[in-house]
Amino acid sequence: MHGTRFLILADGEFGPLTSKTANSVIRYLPDRIAAVVDRASAGQTVQQVLGFGGAIPIVGSMREGLARKPDQVLIGIAPMGGRLPDEWRDWLLEALDAGCDLWSGLHTFLSDEPALAARARARGRTIHDLRRPPASLPVASGRAKEVEPYVILTVGTDCNVGKMTSQLQIVKDLNARQLRTRFVATGQTGIMIEGWGIAVDAVVADFIAGAAEWLVLEGSKDADIVLVEGQGSLNHPGYSGVTCGLLHGACPDALILCHQATREYIGDYRQASWLKIPPLSEYVRLYETVAGFVHPTTTLGIALNTFDLTEAEARAACDAASRETGLPCTDPVRFSPAPLVDAVVRGREAYLAERRVRA
Amino acid sequence: MHGTRFLILADGEFGPLTSKTANSVIRYLPDRIAAVVDRASAGQTVQQVLGFGGAIPIVGSMREGLARKPDQVLIGIAPMGGRLPDEWRDWLLEALDAGCDLWSGLHTFLSDEPALAARARARGRTIHDLRRPPASLPVASGRAKEVEPYVILTVGTDCNVGKMTSQLQIVKDLNARQLRTRFVATGQTGIMIEGWGIAVDAVVADFIAGAAEWLVLEGSKDADIVLVEGQGSLNHPGYSGVTCGLLHGACPDALILCHQATREYIGDYRQASWLKIPPLSEYVRLYETVAGFVHPTTTLGIALNTFDLTEAEARAACDAASRETGLPCTDPVRFSPAPLVDAVVRGREAYLAERRVRA
Repeated sequence: MHGTRFLILADGEFGPLTSKTANSVIRYLPDRIAAVVDRASAGQTVQQVLGFGGAIPIVGSMREGLARKPDQVLIGIAPMGGRLPDEWRDWLLEALDAGCDLWSGLHTFLSDEPALAARARARGRTIHDLRRPPASLPVASGRAKEVEPYVILTVGTDCNVGKMTSQLQIVKDLNARQLRTRFVATGQTGIMIEGWGIAVDAVVADFIAGAAEWLVLEGSKDADIVLVEGQGSLNHPGYSGVTCGLLHGACPDALILCHQATREYIGDYRQASWLKIPPLSEYVRLYETVAGFVHPTTTLGIALNTFDLTEAEARAACDAASRETGLPCTDPVRFSPAPLVDAVVRGREAYLAERRVRA
Repeated sequence: MHGTRFLILADGEFGPLTSKTANSVIRYLPDRIAAVVDRASAGQTVQQVLGFGGAIPIVGSMREGLARKPDQVLIGIAPMGGRLPDEWRDWLLEALDAGCDLWSGLHTFLSDEPALAARARARGRTIHDLRRPPASLPVASGRAKEVEPYVILTVGTDCNVGKMTSQLQIVKDLNARQLRTRFVATGQTGIMIEGWGIAVDAVVADFIAGAAEWLVLEGSKDADIVLVEGQGSLNHPGYSGVTCGLLHGACPDALILCHQATREYIGDYRQASWLKIPPLSEYVRLYETVAGFVHPTTTLGIALNTFDLTEAEARAACDAASRETGLPCTDPVRFSPAPLVDAVVRGREAYLAERRVRA
């Protein structure tokens, strides 16, 4: 992935809440981005739309994007259901003709589309389907309980609240403290950033926990702390199965609960929703109870996404969340992740002490 | 499926707890079974091994089985992970040569095995992969909350405790009381018996709840009561994701909790397990709490599988479960399902009264 330049397709959907994959790749691989294609915000910079990303240009067509000489084209949105918008097929053919490889996190695999597959073959290009699961996965049997490292999973009040980003911010800070960490990617964007992983929402349902178990066993080699990227929410009407399987397959020793401070309703932000988000303390109880049937776990703290608040409002929101739950809380992107990282370090010390007693 | 004769393959695994698919097909379609192939119990009758099924013979080879003139061969075991035992491939080729269609509920689709697919084509036979999901499924959005009929889901303390069988026994009794029911099959055996359904454990993880929602919407046409076949268990280390997705996608108004009275540990009965089954009342709380985040639900009663107890022990076990939970309890296969059916009828009356008040 290094030495390459990405053109990101996020047409009509580029924004702080709508283009999850694009935004994370921009955040973690900013030097590799040639441009973003989005007719709705063309002419602006990424900084103007997202509040980060600097001078990366937004262009209004595939042609203008390809003129910036990318060698990779990434689909940067993850639409509900994950299918490919029809008119994008032509743009992707254009990109293959221009000599680009394709990257996609959609549920519909690009390499299974005959026209794209044939064109890629003809042009000698590669199609990377980040969500394609490995050919063979186990059924989970609780083996992740037994790993040496301290295993942490981010969980959430909804989709798209910052479970991957919070985990990556914590990893960065732990690395700075000389602890050996391993970030375990469970979704297409994490896999893109980290270079390995399994999109657990794309495996056959019987193997969700098995995929999570395999990832934790794999991630436990040469690590003191394994940080697993969370998915969905245990009370999400569409995606709770993925969350539950991940929770039981990964057997986390500790959780970090992620929430977007201003979000009131569960579900897709592009639709009205009927499901009010319950108080954070109810989530803490829910996640600990359900996880605890397979492996006991503790919530270490709250990661609050405050991107749409003023700084004063954000600090007040963190204080309120901390008071409600009795747990440390920060926005690990906007402010320092230290309160959560301190909780991780303390949690790990208690975990190691308990292991010594049991041994 | 009617007018046909099945040979059931359950080699080495035919028994009350090990050959789930075989046993249910024998229970609900007994007149259609030519023989069972199982080297371990060859020479006995099905009655001798299962305690039901009458004089259906058990034979020791595919050749002897095919001599009984079946026109269908059904794989009657559902092994951990659902894959095809290697030596069975030759037997299935033999069956195709003898003019049989094949039925399979394995995760590995028979029709994707080149040798079997080619032979089936050459012989003009059909391969039915019961677990193959429909090409396109929605992400659930809670629409099953809104259906007219009273929706009941069986849930369990573990896999293979009687969630499908209990539901089918209740359906039979409700039909006798002139209520319009619809049984919704969510697994390969239920689909085989009922003729339609989706194996929710075989869909892509993001679509578990979507498949359940689609099934409930479909099943709600012309029915007073929709009875959804449950899957797995919410605290099963391998399969909880399927259970959670089904629970949130189906939006049941009521639950029936299924348990096998003598089972103490969760997980595969062929392996030692570390996970003790908690008290039934904890399951009631767990299922109602988790379901309630999406749609409120009530547990109507307990269906107890007492196949390995004496009659006196079975009655005592039902009494104990009833005392512990404060709910009606019966073994709906061994005894009358009436206590559960009465609870369903009362539950539906309360549901209709509440709907009238809200309207």
